[in-house]
Amino acid sequence: MSDSPRCLLDRLSLNQETVRQWSLPELADGCARAGVRGVGLWRAPVQEYGAAAAARLVRDAGLRVTSLCRGGFLTAPDPGRRAAALDDNRAAVDEAAALGTDTLVLVSGGLPPGSRDLSGARERVADALGELGPYAAQRGVRLALEPLHPMYAADRCVVSTLAQALDLAERFPAGQVGVVVDTYHLWWDDTVGTQIARAGGTGDGAASRIAAFQLADWVTPLPEGALLGRGQLGDGAVDLRWFRERVDAAGYRGPIEVEIFNPALWARDGTDVLAEIVDRFRTHVG
Amino acid sequence: MSDSPRCLLDRLSLNQETVRQWSLPELADGCARAGVRGVGLWRAPVQEYGAAAAARLVRDAGLRVTSLCRGGFLTAPDPGRRAAALDDNRAAVDEAAALGTDTLVLVSGGLPPGSRDLSGARERVADALGELGPYAAQRGVRLALEPLHPMYAADRCVVSTLAQALDLAERFPAGQVGVVVDTYHLWWDDTVGTQIARAGGTGDGAASRIAAFQLADWVTPLPEGALLGRGQLGDGAVDLRWFRERVDAAGYRGPIEVEIFNPALWARDGTDVLAEIVDRFRTHVG
Repeated sequence: MSDSPRCLLDRLSLNQETVRQWSLPELADGCARAGVRGVGLWRAPVQEYGAAAAARLVRDAGLRVTSLCRGGFLTAPDPGRRAAALDDNRAAVDEAAALGTDTLVLVSGGLPPGSRDLSGARERVADALGELGPYAAQRGVRLALEPLHPMYAADRCVVSTLAQALDLAERFPAGQVGVVVDTYHLWWDDTVGTQIARAGGTGDGAASRIAAFQLADWVTPLPEGALLGRGQLGDGAVDLRWFRERVDAAGYRGPIEVEIFNPALWARDGTDVLAEIVDRFRTHVG
Repeated sequence: MSDSPRCLLDRLSLNQETVRQWSLPELADGCARAGVRGVGLWRAPVQEYGAAAAARLVRDAGLRVTSLCRGGFLTAPDPGRRAAALDDNRAAVDEAAALGTDTLVLVSGGLPPGSRDLSGARERVADALGELGPYAAQRGVRLALEPLHPMYAADRCVVSTLAQALDLAERFPAGQVGVVVDTYHLWWDDTVGTQIARAGGTGDGAASRIAAFQLADWVTPLPEGALLGRGQLGDGAVDLRWFRERVDAAGYRGPIEVEIFNPALWARDGTDVLAEIVDRFRTHVG
């Protein structure tokens, strides 16, 4: 069963960091005007505005919050740092619940300073998921573990492939821990189609691990630090439609969130950027 | 059976690009003085010096050429470009033979401009290996297919993991096509230990696919373009000794080549850089 073009567009969500130049009210207003029905939010601007006020603002604009970015950073071995990280993640769960989203994106964290022990760091992520999962589920929030591109393995995220993320998630109930499928991080991997099917589970949605589906394109050259070089949809190397079809085939019917970190987009008028995203989404995803 | 420290140091080879500030005569002299017995060479400086003269220079210094970098760039679909790439790779094989090395490193090439078809590009690499393998083997040279870090998948190398490289190499006789195990490109992958064992074959060396073993460390932040940010041994996130032990356990007894692209090393005195490499090699690899 494939969605009609209109139906697919109903699933489009705009991640706030894509139009960082917009305040929260501008974001709500801009999305409502463009007919975009979902937004992905980030903790810092939500905290600044107030979670309850942000929830009201978005709801009054007729939008839903599709995800909150982000918790995570769970690899510190030091007990004090670890306890602080868990506390912070419980606060993130509370914020997600206040915003009415069921999805908290987690970026696992990189290697602790001086460490070379990737598998040890991954085990600490698993331990933390075990601690946080029940707390989140009780509040109607699912932890969405996001594999990041391997170029971030040292300093940001020791979970680098969808297979790894699923290996971790599957230790816990599907209602507690899911995964993020983000084209920017996963496009290069020749096993990703197989892993998306695995993430879909039985395909009826009940046991699916796909908690979020995010889009950005891959463009080169990478900027210094490799963080802010994501491409507008259609500008790069990623076969976005192929990904959407694989995620569809795995039974996913949730939001499709556009998350592009790119200073060139931030320098432009937000309304123009969003209009371009809607246009590119129709052409390259629908 | 593990090598003694001295024996391991006998296997150390210095890739020329690590000390780009050195001319070929300086490289030969510097390695001989430092007791380093192998060098990895690059085509451009060898062509400039003359392959026969370079071979003589290196031999007279008591060194062996452990690899020639590099052929490859075999993903163009256009027949004219493809023929030119194959011709250029045959020339690279001839240069490797003239230098007396049995190892030609191949970087497969990225996506053609405007293409998003990774699997098509990978198939063209396989076709090219089939064409070049017999030509190389007749000249005593093995093609060493190098998986590069996934951050290069779009613009440089569509072969991103050791598993992918082995999937391609295993279509051809082990004497024609092997793989490169380079710590910088592979360190993040939780399947790499399994894949190194697979590459070792029966462990007696006869069917091994490990054609080269190269070392560099992973340091952050990545520089713009992500090409010249490799770290000195011991400065980064890679467990180099773990890799060396895995490669040992897979039966590999060949050269261990240090290949670091880093302008900070190029700005220093080459002799100091090489002394530091030997020291770091003892500490972090041996």
